[in-house]
Amino acid sequence: MEDTIVALATAPGVGAIGLIRVSGRDSFDIADKIFKGKKLKEQASHTVHFGRIVAKKDGNTANEIIDEVVVTLFKNPKSYTGEDTVEISGHGSPYILQRIMETCVAAGARLALPGEFTQRAFLNGKLDLAQAEAVADIIAANSKAAQQTALNQLRGGFSADLKFLRDELINFAALIELELDFSDEDVEFADRSQLRELVNRTYKKTKELIESFKLGNVIKNGVSVAIIGKPNAGKSTLLNALLNEERAIVSDIAGTTRDTIEETLNINGVLFRLIDTAGIREHSTDYIENLGIERSKKNAEKADIILHIVDLLNDDDGDHTFNWLQEFEYKTTRVYNKFLTWQKLMSDQGILVTPAFPSIDAKEGFGIDILKNLIYEKAIGENIHTESTIVTNARHHEALQKIMESLLAIKSGMGRNLSGDLLTIDIRRALHYLGEITGQVEVDRDILGTIFGKFCIGK
Amino acid sequence: MEDTIVALATAPGVGAIGLIRVSGRDSFDIADKIFKGKKLKEQASHTVHFGRIVAKKDGNTANEIIDEVVVTLFKNPKSYTGEDTVEISGHGSPYILQRIMETCVAAGARLALPGEFTQRAFLNGKLDLAQAEAVADIIAANSKAAQQTALNQLRGGFSADLKFLRDELINFAALIELELDFSDEDVEFADRSQLRELVNRTYKKTKELIESFKLGNVIKNGVSVAIIGKPNAGKSTLLNALLNEERAIVSDIAGTTRDTIEETLNINGVLFRLIDTAGIREHSTDYIENLGIERSKKNAEKADIILHIVDLLNDDDGDHTFNWLQEFEYKTTRVYNKFLTWQKLMSDQGILVTPAFPSIDAKEGFGIDILKNLIYEKAIGENIHTESTIVTNARHHEALQKIMESLLAIKSGMGRNLSGDLLTIDIRRALHYLGEITGQVEVDRDILGTIFGKFCIGK
Repeated sequence: MEDTIVALATAPGVGAIGLIRVSGRDSFDIADKIFKGKKLKEQASHTVHFGRIVAKKDGNTANEIIDEVVVTLFKNPKSYTGEDTVEISGHGSPYILQRIMETCVAAGARLALPGEFTQRAFLNGKLDLAQAEAVADIIAANSKAAQQTALNQLRGGFSADLKFLRDELINFAALIELELDFSDEDVEFADRSQLRELVNRTYKKTKELIESFKLGNVIKNGVSVAIIGKPNAGKSTLLNALLNEERAIVSDIAGTTRDTIEETLNINGVLFRLIDTAGIREHSTDYIENLGIERSKKNAEKADIILHIVDLLNDDDGDHTFNWLQEFEYKTTRVYNKFLTWQKLMSDQGILVTPAFPSIDAKEGFGIDILKNLIYEKAIGENIHTESTIVTNARHHEALQKIMESLLAIKSGMGRNLSGDLLTIDIRRALHYLGEITGQVEVDRDILGTIFGKFCIGK
Repeated sequence: MEDTIVALATAPGVGAIGLIRVSGRDSFDIADKIFKGKKLKEQASHTVHFGRIVAKKDGNTANEIIDEVVVTLFKNPKSYTGEDTVEISGHGSPYILQRIMETCVAAGARLALPGEFTQRAFLNGKLDLAQAEAVADIIAANSKAAQQTALNQLRGGFSADLKFLRDELINFAALIELELDFSDEDVEFADRSQLRELVNRTYKKTKELIESFKLGNVIKNGVSVAIIGKPNAGKSTLLNALLNEERAIVSDIAGTTRDTIEETLNINGVLFRLIDTAGIREHSTDYIENLGIERSKKNAEKADIILHIVDLLNDDDGDHTFNWLQEFEYKTTRVYNKFLTWQKLMSDQGILVTPAFPSIDAKEGFGIDILKNLIYEKAIGENIHTESTIVTNARHHEALQKIMESLLAIKSGMGRNLSGDLLTIDIRRALHYLGEITGQVEVDRDILGTIFGKFCIGK
């Protein structure tokens, strides 16, 4: 916290503009050393100034102009970090931005560690720990749901829930204290109904938060959907049909292997990763067949949802190729493809068919919307209410589970009419874990390191 | 110019911060529609404000908060484009930045074309055309020399030279005018010595500028160096030796084929692309040998400089494998490798050897610095004086050559005692091409399109 830190704040690579952030006690001194224009130290906070970044040379060499820039000044505590901060906006050449950073370092700054700006914001009380973690989630957000939950967390929605729990627990502790003071007078039992109500409220809220994590995880990490079926069952056609209307927000994920196509699909703001596995070749040699099954099995195992595409025109009930799928029955949906062609074939033979659910015809785009809704329902279960808090962070989930354990211990203790001073131990424990989420209690240095180490440099 | 335009100004991809620039007549109205915080229209120029970007929903749906942002205000004419400009600094998630841009578009902005911000800066007289072109060069700069020449051009160094030429030519035209007025009195010859001096000055300056282009091209595009030699001559060892001390600024260039390694090396701020061709296999089958020669030949043909690595331990004077190199003699330097080992071998036999120039021992790092200087001298010839203008732009070079033609015509016309009104035609022609460089004369729409179309979007 003594050092003044510097880092590139914008994405690496070539752009029109690149932003370098300098934060710390000496930001203005450092900026004034390298900036030619107005004297920045004398300017007001939240103002913008045009000038040049100049590298001083030793001895007789002329000073070198690195770039023409615009600097923005934020005076402590009215900045992101809560410290004096100077943002240098230069031409977006990686070479020039590197040179500007070197010039800052030569003038006394040091390169920032990943997440160090946000860590300082936390340590300076600008954000609690849960909000700081939301910053990384916002930057990583690639769907509306992920962005909304992260933004809600940054804006203090989750912190407000935690404050509610904390206030309730402190209230509980105060009541216990009161009970202990009057314990000689045996008023204990009279007060405990209020205590019971209180602990039930906190228990309910904690349970809600814990349960939201399943959804939170889906929102944050997306849902993987493995599409499995025989060759020509229409897997790729279905993939295209699913993607077609969403072409704008669809992209190949880099690094996927050639034999497994992975595409992303956004349904109602939630990201689905569709994995189109190579068809399982049943009439091929054993070696290749086994290879196909192994690959599909692996994808099926990892997937959150399996779509098993059944070709209505070639439905072979005696086909044991997919026997292994039974293991994943709980997450498998059979999708009946080529329905329109099959229906016509049957009707030509005078047979009226009722479609199994879900029946589609990928080629004709038939049933695709229904299938999308089905996938969404499978993943999300109920509607997302972005107004209510959704826990997306595994660390928070873990702490909430420990709070839950403490609350269960309190409930059970009260059932056994445990004395107040014993209950207090569990209340303290719950308060401790609450504080760990927001960072109100001293958080382990290693935990802080893990949290901020995952940030990008410059944030 | 009627529209208000919007684009991402920072590099694409994930960063801590992303910057979106809105410029045009309605920038503040648009910003006030989507920004919740202070009313921006009422704030001073060059100030910074914290708030939220909010997307309005139709009917009953609640407004959606897209991001918490910082906006920077630049009021016309004190902005990059010379128009009202609002810069929105949001969280660096591509998803969120996309959403912010969509919100701007929904509020009345349209997406900017490549280079449209800079084009507006030019049309509003904030930059001349040569300066505008320098902006793209600065962003593309990946060496000190390239950055310095581009920055000099942006800062008006080149424009000042052009202004000198323009003033001289206008002065010339005025003198001719005077001569014409007094033509009855036959004072013509008396004045022409001054005219001759004047045209010689402009000629000299134009010639300097044209000659600087060879260097400018090298600075802007780098110098390609083909390393050619037999297998085991030490080509790769030399490549590594050259790169070793510069490891930090060395990188593989993406997309190089497997059989040709291309690496970049920065010598005194100039970028060299070293191309290590596959060794020519002389004892292989004809087919492979020919393939090797063909490939080396192709690289040699394209290269600015050829280093032919000769293995002193295996020097075969009767070797005709490199006969084809004679064609490129003018740009070939023979480099004698493994000198130290060879020297020792000779000295063991009692023979004292004098090294041919340049002799190196790549493995031992011997002679590498001398070789580097040699390569640099070969490419640059003389020292780079970044204070003097270096023309780096082919369009400028072309226009300067046309100016030169006009000046030669004037010189020749004066030699033939051509009358003033005939000389004036060539002066006008020279002034026209001068104006084309800076954009002072009406520049063809297509030319503007070509110039700004090469920019990145957001600049």
